[in-house]
Amino acid sequence: MSLLVTGSIGIDTVETPFGKVENVLGGSAVYFSLAASNFSPVRLVGVVGEDFPPVFRDVFGERPIDLAGLELRRGSKTFRWQGRYVGDMNEAQTLRTDLNVLAEAAPKIPLAFRDSDVVFLANTHPLLQRELLASVSKPKLVVCDTMNLWIDTARTELARTLAMVHGVVLNDHEGRMLTSANNLVEVARRVLGMGPRFVVIKKGEHGSMLATGDEFFALPAFPTTKVVDPTGAGDSFAGGMLGYLASVGRFEPADLLAALARGTVTASFTIEGFSVEAIRRVTKAAIDQRLTALRRMVQFE
Amino acid sequence: MSLLVTGSIGIDTVETPFGKVENVLGGSAVYFSLAASNFSPVRLVGVVGEDFPPVFRDVFGERPIDLAGLELRRGSKTFRWQGRYVGDMNEAQTLRTDLNVLAEAAPKIPLAFRDSDVVFLANTHPLLQRELLASVSKPKLVVCDTMNLWIDTARTELARTLAMVHGVVLNDHEGRMLTSANNLVEVARRVLGMGPRFVVIKKGEHGSMLATGDEFFALPAFPTTKVVDPTGAGDSFAGGMLGYLASVGRFEPADLLAALARGTVTASFTIEGFSVEAIRRVTKAAIDQRLTALRRMVQFE
Repeated sequence: MSLLVTGSIGIDTVETPFGKVENVLGGSAVYFSLAASNFSPVRLVGVVGEDFPPVFRDVFGERPIDLAGLELRRGSKTFRWQGRYVGDMNEAQTLRTDLNVLAEAAPKIPLAFRDSDVVFLANTHPLLQRELLASVSKPKLVVCDTMNLWIDTARTELARTLAMVHGVVLNDHEGRMLTSANNLVEVARRVLGMGPRFVVIKKGEHGSMLATGDEFFALPAFPTTKVVDPTGAGDSFAGGMLGYLASVGRFEPADLLAALARGTVTASFTIEGFSVEAIRRVTKAAIDQRLTALRRMVQFE
Repeated sequence: MSLLVTGSIGIDTVETPFGKVENVLGGSAVYFSLAASNFSPVRLVGVVGEDFPPVFRDVFGERPIDLAGLELRRGSKTFRWQGRYVGDMNEAQTLRTDLNVLAEAAPKIPLAFRDSDVVFLANTHPLLQRELLASVSKPKLVVCDTMNLWIDTARTELARTLAMVHGVVLNDHEGRMLTSANNLVEVARRVLGMGPRFVVIKKGEHGSMLATGDEFFALPAFPTTKVVDPTGAGDSFAGGMLGYLASVGRFEPADLLAALARGTVTASFTIEGFSVEAIRRVTKAAIDQRLTALRRMVQFE
């Protein structure tokens, strides 16, 4: 099945206990695409400004990522984010955000992409997520992300978006904020009450859970002591999941659990390097090796 | 194999968002014994005072728990603990502790118990843990628990105890405190460097991990929205694990993972009622049902 992602493409500056990188490639659609491309070709829709370094495009060229939806807008500047991770590195401190081109008109979804089967709406204003979705004719699976800002400032719009998607991917803080519940099983139950058929709750080093109306799945994170830069872990998780689901073309509960495992493992590579350095180099063999290890970690007699 | 536990037997007063219970049965050895007795007979060693309500003994009578090591000390008072859980209920606030008989001489391990194969040293002063262990002639598996207080005030004694046990069970906070590491995989690595052959790190609603020198296992918590009273969850976890290991009589990595699953499921019952109300009523069939559900939650293709 064909897979479309809409989201940000950015220039990041990131500081972690392991060092600092300046003006490197980032953005939700970037991490998602690189992760998903290990399982399925990806159609990327996003917009950058004139200042977008041409060399950044090379990263996509190494992968089956279709850039027909990547708009380079003259006279505009690329989205920029600067952040820092400290302590257990479970959450980023945002030092600076320059929305730039993201505050302007949304990119257009090319005609050739409108037949996409699987759609990931990365984090952006929920109204914009629905506008983008309206350009896809008959998607079979639509999954969205969101963030604290929209839960706080655009709750009604977010509720409308949640009512239109099949799945939603949240982290534990966002889930608690959205539902006012503490217990994460209860959080999942309440999110499902808002419309989606499944919800994924990402918990960083504590792994993830996936709930449908009837089923509950949970996996630990892939264990690593080499957490260099967590930026993009969540989008890589979603990319691994949806890339896998697009490749199998089924969305039954067992497929969702198998996808959760692919998301877990794919994200585990992203955090082992700054920016996209680790995820761009990952191979199918390396992913399969970690899948085998993850299976061994949880499959008890 | 025979299974021995030494630990506290107490009278608890507990308040949670679901209500309050006063002067109810509690203590690490109690929760451990009830949990373990689902898999294996248990030899309990502990001491109570004159004020210990005789009716509390009935709870043990329902189970294969040998009370030959339960000392009723005349002129002494039973250990009492009062605590409260709020918010996400992941950690207890201790309101009051009366050590009472626990501050006096330790109980004696009966001669008939000295051939025990599997020994759990529930949380107490690490020096006392070693004294108790010295009374067991040739244990095949010794596992201990500990707490923040001893990490803080008796670190050298704790290090000596850790060097003498096969396994240690900690929660994530204790592990971080003991090793000064943030990353839990690194915490596990450092604990193993202190001597034990395996370490279990309990993470409450986030499940647990188990590391040996070569293997790493992790399981999610059993999902429940009915968290009534978390008291005793950790000791029930250890009880489920060691009760299972005593029943199979092997401690290979695959057995440790299977034990981790039994600990996970057994503890999930404890927290569904105040005091021992839920864990005392659990059946093997109920445990097996949750084991099947847990397996289904994690076993991906």
